[in-house]
Amino acid sequence: QVALLDIDICGPSIPKMMGLEGEQVHQSGSGWSPVYVEENLGVMSVGFLLSSPDDAVIWRGPKKNGLIKQFLRDVDWGEIDYLIVDTPPGTSDEHLSVVQYLSAAHIDGAVIITTPQEVSLQDVRKEISFCRKVKLPIIGVVENMSGFICPKCKKESQIFPPTTGGAEKMCQNLNVSLLGKVPLDPQIGKSCDRGQSFLSEAPESPATSSYRNIIQRIQEYCDQHHFQEEKII
Amino acid sequence: QVALLDIDICGPSIPKMMGLEGEQVHQSGSGWSPVYVEENLGVMSVGFLLSSPDDAVIWRGPKKNGLIKQFLRDVDWGEIDYLIVDTPPGTSDEHLSVVQYLSAAHIDGAVIITTPQEVSLQDVRKEISFCRKVKLPIIGVVENMSGFICPKCKKESQIFPPTTGGAEKMCQNLNVSLLGKVPLDPQIGKSCDRGQSFLSEAPESPATSSYRNIIQRIQEYCDQHHFQEEKII
Repeated sequence: QVALLDIDICGPSIPKMMGLEGEQVHQSGSGWSPVYVEENLGVMSVGFLLSSPDDAVIWRGPKKNGLIKQFLRDVDWGEIDYLIVDTPPGTSDEHLSVVQYLSAAHIDGAVIITTPQEVSLQDVRKEISFCRKVKLPIIGVVENMSGFICPKCKKESQIFPPTTGGAEKMCQNLNVSLLGKVPLDPQIGKSCDRGQSFLSEAPESPATSSYRNIIQRIQEYCDQHHFQEEKII
Repeated sequence: QVALLDIDICGPSIPKMMGLEGEQVHQSGSGWSPVYVEENLGVMSVGFLLSSPDDAVIWRGPKKNGLIKQFLRDVDWGEIDYLIVDTPPGTSDEHLSVVQYLSAAHIDGAVIITTPQEVSLQDVRKEISFCRKVKLPIIGVVENMSGFICPKCKKESQIFPPTTGGAEKMCQNLNVSLLGKVPLDPQIGKSCDRGQSFLSEAPESPATSSYRNIIQRIQEYCDQHHFQEEKII
């Protein structure tokens, strides 16, 4: 059982990417019900509370924090194995709130996404510094948009060149795991726009095997983490 | 005279992209002095206040708003023709604060940047809705990452496919100007990482002529806007 919580309050893209646009959240006796993509995958996002996908949520921090608290407290997630929280970029309200509200529940860790350029790595170093300051373990870093293979001539281009060594070098320097690199594939954007699973749509893509490896590494990390926690208890 | 103000407090990329990393803000009798790239281009960013570029600014909204106010009130910008404000994505504290603090000064308008996919356009429709709600004129939309020409075979690929017609169709539907499309060019990322001007580094790139056209259209808009204001006065 997997739950996906979108806390990008002002730019919620999860409903569209999961093919759930137009869905509404239902109120049940035990709280808000998530919207289900499949039986084992429930989703919650501010997108489900808007009357149109173009509606802007023009809220300052405190209102955003209030909704995040409601999402964590008032949603009837049921029994779940994983709660995945998608955050906007930055080190501000959303990040502080989710870490604070979940502190008693012990977050397994953060997965940090970057692209190969130094301009992005610089932001990601700030995220890593954030995690260390708030004592949030880092599961690892994913490098997205890691090169593009031209569908016509099959030659690879670095569209976002890793001028300072990309995520690999940064992870070595900061002693953080690199979970994998996902190459650019135009089908990824198409699948997101259509709300379809890229993994089922393009099972043969090198990006799919990269995603699968990354998922496996995250699962292994969490399994090990839980095993250690049980030992401690 | 151009001033560039970076209000992405938690992810300031402007110092790096302008080649100003490691620079510090100086205090003068008349306030903080901007850091100058050239005589006619002054820059201000929280990046100049940090001891290391990897330092995270872990601040909630109110502290971010306080710094934005200081940037607008306490920086000795001198006589300037243009103040360009770079914001993070979203419709939250930074956007509300800058619009509010500059309301008496009459902002010419907003330039909104998107990529061609529907997932991005959806966020941009929210930005447009934000501008309309706060009565901020929209100068226009720029479509970034609009296709990639393979340097080996010269064939074009849509890496971020415009599955719903891209920025062009969205602008038509919402009655907003499309200022231009900037194609993907690996040199753009390199220039940003090196803090060099892409326009001087790659004068022959199609992206450069696209940037120049966009700049010209923004200038024309502002000139017309000022002319109309003078007529009213």
